[in-house]
Amino acid sequence: MEGLFITFEGGEGAGKSTVLQEIKERLVAMEKKVVATREPGGSRIAEKIRDVILNPEHTEMDSRTEALLYAAARRQHLVEKVVPYLEDGYIVLCDRFIDSSLVYQGGARGIGTEEVLQINLFATEGLMPKLTLFFDIEPTLGLKRIEDHKGREYNRLDQEKLEFHERVRESYKLLAHNNSTRIQTIDATPSLEEVIENTWAIIESYI
Amino acid sequence: MEGLFITFEGGEGAGKSTVLQEIKERLVAMEKKVVATREPGGSRIAEKIRDVILNPEHTEMDSRTEALLYAAARRQHLVEKVVPYLEDGYIVLCDRFIDSSLVYQGGARGIGTEEVLQINLFATEGLMPKLTLFFDIEPTLGLKRIEDHKGREYNRLDQEKLEFHERVRESYKLLAHNNSTRIQTIDATPSLEEVIENTWAIIESYI
Repeated sequence: MEGLFITFEGGEGAGKSTVLQEIKERLVAMEKKVVATREPGGSRIAEKIRDVILNPEHTEMDSRTEALLYAAARRQHLVEKVVPYLEDGYIVLCDRFIDSSLVYQGGARGIGTEEVLQINLFATEGLMPKLTLFFDIEPTLGLKRIEDHKGREYNRLDQEKLEFHERVRESYKLLAHNNSTRIQTIDATPSLEEVIENTWAIIESYI
Repeated sequence: MEGLFITFEGGEGAGKSTVLQEIKERLVAMEKKVVATREPGGSRIAEKIRDVILNPEHTEMDSRTEALLYAAARRQHLVEKVVPYLEDGYIVLCDRFIDSSLVYQGGARGIGTEEVLQINLFATEGLMPKLTLFFDIEPTLGLKRIEDHKGREYNRLDQEKLEFHERVRESYKLLAHNNSTRIQTIDATPSLEEVIENTWAIIESYI
């Protein structure tokens, strides 16, 4: 495939979605073929699966059910959107991908990274991003940013306690350490402008 | 677990759902603790997943997405319904379970039985039925029965061609052959009354 697959990862309130949009605009300004997308969602069926996953009423959802639903949404999004764009030579910027499952369901919820990896390899048939950006932030700071940002929708994950978000962070750090070629860590503590510049410096070296 | 987990399997129009209800009524009449349930579905979240799977408009659904959604619905149904009833000593009669995925997605859609088994073992954590009844019928006869049965809802699987249903049958036969202790094959060609009696004879030896 001729395109370039880049994923954006991190805990809540790290600013990755905002940075992604800015990176996309800079690439558009350079007249690059670029598309921005997100998980879970990004296609009709995947959005319906997203609705089931994120519905705040679904408090009885089992962790393994959740992991399988994320993998299902991932598969459909990959087949309908990511792969066709990559085959057409696009830079695909994706807000969350396989690492989110390894971290949230595998690590933070305690199913185990290896087991969650297996169902995700079933979903992706081994396709991995060329580059993954992990936006690292203290959970207390990240959660405070979300509270301050009134426009953001409330979802089921927001009900989780601080301890959960700390497990997410530790799990991301471990994953980044074990995949240091693919995953680049970006400190998301500074101002948005600074984080964008640091991100852009990495992206530039790949395009 | 003290209960007895029995699953009903087979292609379209084999009559398994009707037989299941009759078996349930006989067990109720004997004052057995018994519950009838079905897949995909059987709990609030599982029913929502069912809606996504069976929606006739979802013609773009990928086979692997479908397999993951069935596994997700299976997991939630298992955790919320099957396991609690088994722990409470019930006979649980379930219309479709893991074998349907091995046959429909693994065999008939060509993903491969072993790969589909792996994601299902993630979902079930190894829980298998004590007894599985495979209702075997010629696909042409089964499909004719469905056509004649006006009350039945139309779903996405009904759009499949005859060749698909023939692959389903061959895949069930192979599975039954390879799991001859757990899976008992019942010829579903005769009258409903005869199929019920043959089924009852097997069930009686387990209770």
